[in-house]
Amino acid sequence: MTRRVKEILSWYDTANAGVRTNLARIMNHGTLAGTGRMVILPVDQGFEHGPARSFAPNPPAYNPLYHFGLAIEAGCNAYAAPLGFLEAGAAEHAGDIPLILKLNNHDVLLEEKDPASAVTGSVRDALELGCVGVGFTIYPGSSFRRVMYEQLREIAEEAKAHGLCVVVWSYPRGSGLSKAGETALDVCAYAGQIAAQLGAHIIKVKLPSAHLEQAEAKKVYEETRIPLEPLSERVRHVVQSCFDGRRIVIFSGGAKEDDATLLGEVRAIHAGGGFGSIIGRNSFQRPRAQALELLRQIMAIYAT
Amino acid sequence: MTRRVKEILSWYDTANAGVRTNLARIMNHGTLAGTGRMVILPVDQGFEHGPARSFAPNPPAYNPLYHFGLAIEAGCNAYAAPLGFLEAGAAEHAGDIPLILKLNNHDVLLEEKDPASAVTGSVRDALELGCVGVGFTIYPGSSFRRVMYEQLREIAEEAKAHGLCVVVWSYPRGSGLSKAGETALDVCAYAGQIAAQLGAHIIKVKLPSAHLEQAEAKKVYEETRIPLEPLSERVRHVVQSCFDGRRIVIFSGGAKEDDATLLGEVRAIHAGGGFGSIIGRNSFQRPRAQALELLRQIMAIYAT
Amino acid sequence: MTRRVKEILSWYDTANAGVRTNLARIMNHGTLAGTGRMVILPVDQGFEHGPARSFAPNPPAYNPLYHFGLAIEAGCNAYAAPLGFLEAGAAEHAGDIPLILKLNNHDVLLEEKDPASAVTGSVRDALELGCVGVGFTIYPGSSFRRVMYEQLREIAEEAKAHGLCVVVWSYPRGSGLSKAGETALDVCAYAGQIAAQLGAHIIKVKLPSAHLEQAEAKKVYEETRIPLEPLSERVRHVVQSCFDGRRIVIFSGGAKEDDATLLGEVRAIHAGGGFGSIIGRNSFQRPRAQALELLRQIMAIYAT
Amino acid sequence: MTRRVKEILSWYDTANAGVRTNLARIMNHGTLAGTGRMVILPVDQGFEHGPARSFAPNPPAYNPLYHFGLAIEAGCNAYAAPLGFLEAGAAEHAGDIPLILKLNNHDVLLEEKDPASAVTGSVRDALELGCVGVGFTIYPGSSFRRVMYEQLREIAEEAKAHGLCVVVWSYPRGSGLSKAGETALDVCAYAGQIAAQLGAHIIKVKLPSAHLEQAEAKKVYEETRIPLEPLSERVRHVVQSCFDGRRIVIFSGGAKEDDATLLGEVRAIHAGGGFGSIIGRNSFQRPRAQALELLRQIMAIYAT
Amino acid sequence: MTRRVKEILSWYDTANAGVRTNLARIMNHGTLAGTGRMVILPVDQGFEHGPARSFAPNPPAYNPLYHFGLAIEAGCNAYAAPLGFLEAGAAEHAGDIPLILKLNNHDVLLEEKDPASAVTGSVRDALELGCVGVGFTIYPGSSFRRVMYEQLREIAEEAKAHGLCVVVWSYPRGSGLSKAGETALDVCAYAGQIAAQLGAHIIKVKLPSAHLEQAEAKKVYEETRIPLEPLSERVRHVVQSCFDGRRIVIFSGGAKEDDATLLGEVRAIHAGGGFGSIIGRNSFQRPRAQALELLRQIMAIYAT
Repeated sequence: MTRRVKEILSWYDTANAGVRTNLARIMNHGTLAGTGRMVILPVDQGFEHGPARSFAPNPPAYNPLYHFGLAIEAGCNAYAAPLGFLEAGAAEHAGDIPLILKLNNHDVLLEEKDPASAVTGSVRDALELGCVGVGFTIYPGSSFRRVMYEQLREIAEEAKAHGLCVVVWSYPRGSGLSKAGETALDVCAYAGQIAAQLGAHIIKVKLPSAHLEQAEAKKVYEETRIPLEPLSERVRHVVQSCFDGRRIVIFSGGAKEDDATLLGEVRAIHAGGGFGSIIGRNSFQRPRAQALELLRQIMAIYAT
Repeated sequence: MTRRVKEILSWYDTANAGVRTNLARIMNHGTLAGTGRMVILPVDQGFEHGPARSFAPNPPAYNPLYHFGLAIEAGCNAYAAPLGFLEAGAAEHAGDIPLILKLNNHDVLLEEKDPASAVTGSVRDALELGCVGVGFTIYPGSSFRRVMYEQLREIAEEAKAHGLCVVVWSYPRGSGLSKAGETALDVCAYAGQIAAQLGAHIIKVKLPSAHLEQAEAKKVYEETRIPLEPLSERVRHVVQSCFDGRRIVIFSGGAKEDDATLLGEVRAIHAGGGFGSIIGRNSFQRPRAQALELLRQIMAIYAT
Repeated sequence: MTRRVKEILSWYDTANAGVRTNLARIMNHGTLAGTGRMVILPVDQGFEHGPARSFAPNPPAYNPLYHFGLAIEAGCNAYAAPLGFLEAGAAEHAGDIPLILKLNNHDVLLEEKDPASAVTGSVRDALELGCVGVGFTIYPGSSFRRVMYEQLREIAEEAKAHGLCVVVWSYPRGSGLSKAGETALDVCAYAGQIAAQLGAHIIKVKLPSAHLEQAEAKKVYEETRIPLEPLSERVRHVVQSCFDGRRIVIFSGGAKEDDATLLGEVRAIHAGGGFGSIIGRNSFQRPRAQALELLRQIMAIYAT
Repeated sequence: MTRRVKEILSWYDTANAGVRTNLARIMNHGTLAGTGRMVILPVDQGFEHGPARSFAPNPPAYNPLYHFGLAIEAGCNAYAAPLGFLEAGAAEHAGDIPLILKLNNHDVLLEEKDPASAVTGSVRDALELGCVGVGFTIYPGSSFRRVMYEQLREIAEEAKAHGLCVVVWSYPRGSGLSKAGETALDVCAYAGQIAAQLGAHIIKVKLPSAHLEQAEAKKVYEETRIPLEPLSERVRHVVQSCFDGRRIVIFSGGAKEDDATLLGEVRAIHAGGGFGSIIGRNSFQRPRAQALELLRQIMAIYAT
Repeated sequence: MTRRVKEILSWYDTANAGVRTNLARIMNHGTLAGTGRMVILPVDQGFEHGPARSFAPNPPAYNPLYHFGLAIEAGCNAYAAPLGFLEAGAAEHAGDIPLILKLNNHDVLLEEKDPASAVTGSVRDALELGCVGVGFTIYPGSSFRRVMYEQLREIAEEAKAHGLCVVVWSYPRGSGLSKAGETALDVCAYAGQIAAQLGAHIIKVKLPSAHLEQAEAKKVYEETRIPLEPLSERVRHVVQSCFDGRRIVIFSGGAKEDDATLLGEVRAIHAGGGFGSIIGRNSFQRPRAQALELLRQIMAIYAT
C-alpha cells in the first residue's frame, strides 16, 4: 500500500472497511497501481448509442469478452459496463480485474429534451458478479434530475452497506442548459460538486470548456478571477470544486478524437491534478494493438 | 446433452444452475432437441389483438387447451402465453412441454402513440404454474420505455433468483420512430442489444428490413459497409449485435403470410445464424393439420 | 356435488383447493345450487351513482341489511358490495350467503373521459369479513387501464394465495371508444378475453349489442361470418371468447328495464350458454315482494 | 353503558373490540356521555387557513394547550388536531379527553382548482399519542379523489387493525362541482355515502343547502319527492344516505356565524336525527368564557 | 442543565428521551450553551447554488473540513450539511460538535416556477454519521408541496423513532406566491405554523418583511392590528405563530449583507423572542478570522 493510496483512502474515513477495500482494489490494480491515478475502461455505448455505432468500426468489440480482455491486457484499473456485458464475462474472468456494474442506462431511440436513464441493474447483481462498485449516471439540468438523484441515493446507501464503492457519472444535460453549457466550466464544476454531495466515492465528469453558462456564476468567476485557460487550470478548478480535491475525480474523453488531441488532454488532466481518465470509444473503436498502444501512452503520462 | 447445447450454455456461465437447467430444458425438448435451434409457440394475440381477430379464422383456437396440444404435437421447444391461458391448461399438461409465462400485455382498445404493456402476471405465478421461464415485452422508442425497462429489471432479478430464464420480446415502437423504422435494420439490431444488456437469456426481435432509420447510425452502416442484403445478412448483423452471437436470438413471423414467404424467411434466419423462430398467427390461425405440417417444414429447415 | 359443478371446477384445476372450494360455495348456494348457473346480487350503486339515485325509489334499500335479506330470501348465489355495505351486515349474517367484497369503486361527482376506479378495500378485509371472493372492475379502453390491470394483478395474486376467488367486472369505457362501442359485440368479447387472460375466475360483462366498433375486428367478423343476431348468438360469441366457455361468464342488466325485456334477455343468456346474471337495480329499486317475484322468474329460466 | 350507546355500537359489529372500545370512549366522555350525541372540537385551521386568520381573533388560541383545556372544560366528546398540535399537549393531558389525530392536511398558500390534502401523520403517531382514532379528509369531486380514497383505504385498514376508529371529513370540492354544489343536498348525501362505503366509523359532512347540483340526481329528488325544507329534513336525508342512520354522522359549522344562526342549525341537526356537531372556529375564535357558554348551549340542545 | 433548557425541553414532552437528549445536546453546546439561544452553521450552498458562487470568495471553504473547523472554533451550537460534506469530516471530528444531516437538496441548473428538493440522504446515514438530527426543506406555495410534506412525514417518523431531532427549513416559494410574498409576514408566519404542525422540533424561517401577501390574511392582520413594525415585532409574531413560542424558531440570514445590517437583524431576532440564527454565507464567504469575529459578535447579542 503506497503512501499516496493511503492518503486518498484517508479522505474516505467515514466509509466502512468494505468500501475502502474496494477503492484500494481499484487503485492497486494494473499499470497505475499505487500511483493514485487511474484509467478505467467503460463500455456502455452499445446501450447508449446502439451496437453498430459503437462496435462496427472494430467488429471484435461486438463480443463482450473482447472488452474484458482489452481492459486486462492494457492494465486498466477497472472495467465498467451494464448488466448484460458483465454477465457475459464475469465468470470467465473472475478475479482478473476490478468490475464496476453500471446500474442505469439511456438509449437514443427516442430523443428527449430532458433525458433520464432507466435503472437496469441492482446492488445484488453487482455483488453476485463480484464487482468492486456500482456506477450511476445523473443528468443535472434535466427536469428528471430529482428522480435520478433519489434513485442514486437509495442505490448508494445499499451499495455502501454492502461494501461497494459508488462511481457517479455526472453529465449536465436538459432543457435548462444550452448545448455549450453542458461542458461549460461553471456547469462541470457544479456537476462535480453535486455528485460529491450525493456521496459519490469516484466522480466522473466531462472535460470542461472555457465557456461560462450561468449569469450569476459568471459574475463570480470574473470577480474572483478563476482562470479559464489553459485546460489544466480548468481541470484544477473542477477538482477543487469536488471537496478541494478530497474526492477522486476522473475525466471522460467523449467522441473519438485524434490521438494528439487526446494525449494533450490527458497531460492537462495530469497537470491540473485530475485523478485519471475514462477511455471508452477512443480505445475499443480501433484495432486492439492500436488500443493497447494508446492506453500505454496515456498511462505513461499518468505514471509520471 | 449435445456439444452445441453445452456450448450455448457456456455463454450463460454467470447464471445459476437453475437458470441453466431451464435453458437446457427448452433446448432439449421437441423436434429440435439438442440442435441449439428452437421454435416456440406464442399465443398472446387474444390479449394483444382481441379474440375474434386471433381465433375466429380457426375457432378451436378459442380453447386454451388447443394451443398446448398444438405445441406438444408439433414438437415445439416451448409454449408461451399470458396468465389466463396458462392457468387453463398447465395442470392438465403438467410436464408435457416447457412453459413460458408472458408477464406483460397490451391491448388495442385504446391506441396510443407511445405504447406500454401492463404487468399481468408474476414470477410467483410462473413458479406455481411450473414454467421454465418468464416473458416480457419492451418497446424501445416509446416514451414509456424507462417504465418497462425498470419493470423488466425487477422481474428479471426475481426470476433469475428463482432459477427461471428470461425471454425478452424487444419491439421498437413509439413516437421516436417512423412506421418503417420499427423494423429498420439499425433499430432491430439496437433493440436486440438493449435486451441483451438488460440481461435477457433469450431475445426475440422482428425480422429486420433493409431500411435504416437513424441518421447517425446510417452513416456508420454506410462507412463500415454493413451489408443490407440479403435477409440472411441482416439476420447475421442482428445476431452479431446481440453480444456477437453469445445470446440466443429468435425471430418473429408477424402477421399471417403465405407459406413460401414464411419458409423463405426461416431459411434466411437459419443461414444468418439465427437461433430460431416464434411462430404464432401463422400456426394457430389455420387448421390444425396444416399447422402441424407447416411447423414440420420449419423445423426441418432448422434441423439441417 | 353435481356432475355439472364438478365439470366447471375441472376448468380451474390450476387453482388451489381454497379457490375451488369458494367457487363451489357460490355454485352450490341458493335456488340455482348445483345447476352451474348463477344469479348474483350486486349493490355498489350507492358509491357509483349516489344514494338517492340508487335507493330513493325504494327507501328501505338505504339500509345495508336490506340487501343481505333480499339476496338470502331470493336464493341468490352470492351478494357483492363495497367495504362499507359488507361491514354493516357481515357479522349479523355470518354464514347466510356467499359474499364478494368489491375492491374498487368509482363515483360520478367528477365525470372524466378516461375513468378509473379507486381501490377501496383489501384482500385482508375480504378475509376478515368471511367472503368467498373479491370483485374488481377494469375499464378496458381507458387511458388508465394499465393502472387497473396492474392493481388487479396484485390483488388477484394475493386473493388466490389466500383461497379467494376473483370476480372481474370488465366494462369497456374511455376515450378510445364511442358510446355505442362500450357494448359493441367485438368490444364486449375483447373485454371478456382480457379478464380471462388476467386470471379472473368469474367474468362479468355487459350484454353485447350488434354494433361492431373496431375496423380491423369488423373485417374479421364479416369474413368469418360471426352471427350478430339474435342476442343469444352474441352471448354465445362472448362466452366462446372467454376461453371457449371454460370460464364462468355472467351478464349485467344495466339500468332499470321493463320486466318483459329483462326476462327476454335472461332467456337469451340462457340459450347462448351464459352462466347467469348480475341483477342490481332491477331488483333493489322495486318493492321487496316484486323483487323476490322477479328474481324467482329469472332463476326459473336459468333452472331449466 | 347506556342502551343508546349499546345500540349504536351494535351497528359496528364487524369491528374488532378495540375499535368498539374507542367508539365507546368517545360516546361516553364529557357532557353528552351516554346520549349517543357528540360535540367534537377540531383545530386544524392553523394548517388549513394560516395562524393569524385562525388565532389572531383570540390570541391565547395560538397556544396548543389552550385547545386541550377548552375541549376538556367544555365537556366535548373528543378533540381532533394535526400532529404538531397533539404532540404539544398529549403528554400533559394524557387521559383527559379522547384524542383524534388528523392524518392529512391542506394549506392555502397555493390555491388549486382540484385540491388534495397531504398525509401529515401516521397510525403509529396516533398510537404513540394515545389517540382513540384517526381523522382523514377526502374531497369527492376533485380529480385527486382516487389518491385520497386509496390513502384512506390504507390508513383505515391499519387503524382498524390497531383498534383505532376512523373519522372521515367528506367535503366535496373540485373542478366537477360549482361553488354552490359543494353544499348541495344531493352532493352532501353522496359524500356521506362515499365515506360510509369507504368504511368510516364517524362521518363528518357540511350542513346541506336546498340546492341540487347534479341533473340526474335532481330528477330523482323531484320524482321521489325528497323534501328540501326545512333544514332538519335535509339533515334527515343525509343521515339516511349514510346507511339509513346506521353510521354516526356529524355536521360542521363552517365559518364563524352569529350564535342564533348556529344554535338554530344545531336544533335542526338534532331534530333531523344528526348525531352531533364539530365546532371549530365558532368556539376558539371567541374569548374562552364565551366559547364555554356557547358550547354549553349547544350541548344542552343535544342532551334533550 | 439550566432552568431555561429544562423549560424548553418541557415543551417537547411527547418526544422520546432520545430526541430530548439530542435537543439538549444542541442547546448545551458551544458559546451559547445553556442560554436556550442558538447559532447554527449551515453549509448546503455548494449544492444549492454551485461551488464557485459559494466558495470562490473564500477558497479554503471548498474543503469540507474547513466548515467543521469554523463551526467548532466559533462555538456554534451545531453544524448542518448534506451527505457528502458530512461524510468528508464526521469521522475526523467525531464528537466535536452536534451534526445535522440535511436530507434534501435543490440545485439551480434548471430553474422551475414550482421548485422541489430531492431527497439526498437517509435517517440511517444520519445515525451512521453520529448526527443529533436531520434537516429537511419544504417549499410551501409550490405545487410540489404535498410531495415534500409527505417525504418529511415519513422521514420525521423514522428519525424520531431513532431518537433524532427534526429541523425543518420552511421556505415559501412557488407559483402561488409573488417574489415579495416569499418573505411576507403572513406567509412566513404561515410557513412556521405548517412546519410546527408537521412535527418539527426546530423551525427555520426567513426574516419576515412588512409585506402582507394574501388578501384574506391581510384583512385579519389589519382588523386585529398585528404590528408590522419594527422587525422585532414581526419576529415576535412569527414565534407566536409557532405554537405561541413553544417551538424553537430560528431565522436565516440570506445573501451576504453588510455587518451592521446583519447585527441589527440579530438584535431584532433577540428582542422579538427568536431563538437564534442560522448563519451560512455571511460566515464562510469571508476570511476565517473575520468570520470568527462576526460570529462572536452575534453570539454576544444572543448571550445577553
